[in-house]
Amino acid sequence: MEKVNLAAKLSAFDALFSPKIVARMNEYKIAVVKTKGEFVWHKHDDTDDFFLVLKGRLRIQLRGLPDVVLDPGELFVVPKGLEHCPRADEETHVLLIEPYGTPNTGNAGGPLTAAEETI
Amino acid sequence: MEKVNLAAKLSAFDALFSPKIVARMNEYKIAVVKTKGEFVWHKHDDTDDFFLVLKGRLRIQLRGLPDVVLDPGELFVVPKGLEHCPRADEETHVLLIEPYGTPNTGNAGGPLTAAEETI
Repeated sequence: MEKVNLAAKLSAFDALFSPKIVARMNEYKIAVVKTKGEFVWHKHDDTDDFFLVLKGRLRIQLRGLPDVVLDPGELFVVPKGLEHCPRADEETHVLLIEPYGTPNTGNAGGPLTAAEETI
Repeated sequence: MEKVNLAAKLSAFDALFSPKIVARMNEYKIAVVKTKGEFVWHKHDDTDDFFLVLKGRLRIQLRGLPDVVLDPGELFVVPKGLEHCPRADEETHVLLIEPYGTPNTGNAGGPLTAAEETI
């Protein structure tokens, strides 16, 4: 029952590609993540994937489609089942929304798979 | 399959208390709304209610609890079933997320009830 200041939450950690949950809405986790460099190609067969850029610039590569490039104040929802790979040349901060239990690496798994950590 | 620039969407309308849907994530609507003044006390028995302030300042009055005051970059999720009433002294822009079919006025109804309009 407390408000969430996104900048304050983002100042509390440094790890890249490691989403931190800051709030819950029904069965969804609201998370912030810091990215720099390329993530991993993956998809989520059961859910859309919400991205809102807070700082920096995020390029979301989409399999077979043009990239989507997001600046602060821009959002994109990757449709379920569409393979995608986020990439950021500079450190970029993003608000993510997905159902609880959705792994950040989707079907790909691997070393970038993060635990669902709340801060 | 297009990105959403929130400022551009917000520049496309003037109406207050009239959420405009800008994206869809699974069964949820992502909307922007302009508010100024007091909304109406209401609750949503079936869903939490997500608010992220983009511009201005939003005071969310909560029945029996202290107000939550949100500045830009701050979010709050009103728990399902909790009566609340947003109020803004200046024009305030907010990102809202709720399931499709959730009326903006919840159980209260009345003249401020808005259609689900996508822009």
